[in-house]
Amino acid sequence: MALSPAIQECELLIKAFSGFGVDEQSMISLLTKLHPDQRQSFRKSCPRFFSHDDRLFEKWERDHIKQLEIEFSRFNKAVVLWTMHPWERDARFAYEIIHKDARFTYEIIHKGSPLSILIEIACTRSSEELLGARKAYHSLFKHSIEEDVAYDVKEDSRSLLVALVSSYRYEGLDVNTEIAKSEAKTLGKAIKEANGKKLVENEDVIRILSTRSKFQLMATFSHYKEIHGKDIDEDLEDDFLQATVQCIYSPPTYFSKVLEVALNNDVDEITKEALTRVIVTRADVDMKEIKEAYQKIYGIPLTEKIERETRGNFKDFLLALAAKGGY
Amino acid sequence: MALSPAIQECELLIKAFSGFGVDEQSMISLLTKLHPDQRQSFRKSCPRFFSHDDRLFEKWERDHIKQLEIEFSRFNKAVVLWTMHPWERDARFAYEIIHKDARFTYEIIHKGSPLSILIEIACTRSSEELLGARKAYHSLFKHSIEEDVAYDVKEDSRSLLVALVSSYRYEGLDVNTEIAKSEAKTLGKAIKEANGKKLVENEDVIRILSTRSKFQLMATFSHYKEIHGKDIDEDLEDDFLQATVQCIYSPPTYFSKVLEVALNNDVDEITKEALTRVIVTRADVDMKEIKEAYQKIYGIPLTEKIERETRGNFKDFLLALAAKGGY
Repeated sequence: MALSPAIQECELLIKAFSGFGVDEQSMISLLTKLHPDQRQSFRKSCPRFFSHDDRLFEKWERDHIKQLEIEFSRFNKAVVLWTMHPWERDARFAYEIIHKDARFTYEIIHKGSPLSILIEIACTRSSEELLGARKAYHSLFKHSIEEDVAYDVKEDSRSLLVALVSSYRYEGLDVNTEIAKSEAKTLGKAIKEANGKKLVENEDVIRILSTRSKFQLMATFSHYKEIHGKDIDEDLEDDFLQATVQCIYSPPTYFSKVLEVALNNDVDEITKEALTRVIVTRADVDMKEIKEAYQKIYGIPLTEKIERETRGNFKDFLLALAAKGGY
Repeated sequence: MALSPAIQECELLIKAFSGFGVDEQSMISLLTKLHPDQRQSFRKSCPRFFSHDDRLFEKWERDHIKQLEIEFSRFNKAVVLWTMHPWERDARFAYEIIHKDARFTYEIIHKGSPLSILIEIACTRSSEELLGARKAYHSLFKHSIEEDVAYDVKEDSRSLLVALVSSYRYEGLDVNTEIAKSEAKTLGKAIKEANGKKLVENEDVIRILSTRSKFQLMATFSHYKEIHGKDIDEDLEDDFLQATVQCIYSPPTYFSKVLEVALNNDVDEITKEALTRVIVTRADVDMKEIKEAYQKIYGIPLTEKIERETRGNFKDFLLALAAKGGY
């Protein structure tokens, strides 16, 4: 019996990944076309390439990766991430950023914190997707996400982060206008009275942003603008709170900004990894909206910017994924 | 085609519930034998009896219940709860206690707070069961549990309660002994240094009790006893913290105490309702262990105490459910 085209493609990929001498161009074009199920089975067929067993992976690294350039390592990571189930992907992003030593180096170089990845995962995914990531985290790391955040994060933002990753927001359309109005005032009052005290530790602010449904919050933000004449994120001086509001209010705008920072930066890998993270996680979700937002904000197509700022297989892979939302 | 015995039993029940003149004895014996699926379909077949549409229910109440004694109302509630899916049951318990005005009356009469029902739901259910209750809450009340707790509970215990109902604990056997030892000390230090400040608001205490897995916490509690020579719940002066520890450490002991209070009290319905709640929610789970614990603590079989303190159909129904765990 002849193999179906899909299986044939998978076979080709498996062959390609079992050693060197890969026809990388056709590989990329095949890879980006795979359905989620095919990605899974492909991943299982190449245990060495995708292994997360440290010894296996380190051996593979010693033997192969070291000879290749950093660009190939980025390409490799992007492929690994692309073939992962979205829940596992989010669980691993969360784990890495909670535990990575690089986090502290990063925090010294930049004013922001890469912990905002946790906000991205908690606020741009649906309630079920966030829950899926929490389940994957259990089975991979034998802890809960909130447990590790609460234990390992020492910053002022801890309470906000724990509340956001623990949330399971209602997703219906019901909005209570009275509450939206009164909580727009509560937020305004908290901002006005912060006076140097840290807004990110304010109980009302945390409660409202971490428990209300997204539709409810949109109503609250719009009342805030009516009352104060400004978007709420302009009034929030805290990076984490700004990220929270932007992730809830307009993920495409938020992701455009993250992409822009990553594309203009070549200093550290954490920032650069954001490029892969956003393209890989959004390719199947809202890539079209992100490309529209990016062009609107920065006046240049996202794909052109990627073309300009990246190289080799890494570039081709990102562009193939970025092409997925049409546009 | 002849009806299967199970369907025949359901038919009998449906007939019995469609009006008065019920042979209540045989009804009770049938009811308690129903599998969860049968309970559901039975419930759907008697919309008037089980209706949560307020108008329908109020009409039914006006027409029928008012003529009957309080004992029948208790019996009625118990049957309604017994036929509910456990997730819906927990969601409704949570909703009622968060919103019930009676809560405030209760708090004046007693020193404790009925909000401990939230702790019971958060800490004696499995992670999946708690999650199920959160899902049921979404569809029934168009909010999340944590949203309503955070908004409606004004007491000092708010942070603890929000953290507990949002938790999704890891349930594997892995325990980190180093962390158990160090957190036993952290808890000891928090208790010692509380000095009138409210322990229930202590960040470390909330973090440890709400995020660690139950096995991890058992190890922590046992190290606590080694270091301090006393069980940790004896050192906790706060009712909510005591309930949390007891629900995690030994649900049968916790439930025995709740039953004892309910059985000895005839003043208010909230306390009395705890009797129905515990018997109905645990009949299929750990009734055997609860009966063992109860007899050990109070020196009298639970069933004998129920026999003595309740009357009529309500009594018979509770006894039939309590008989489920063998013993």
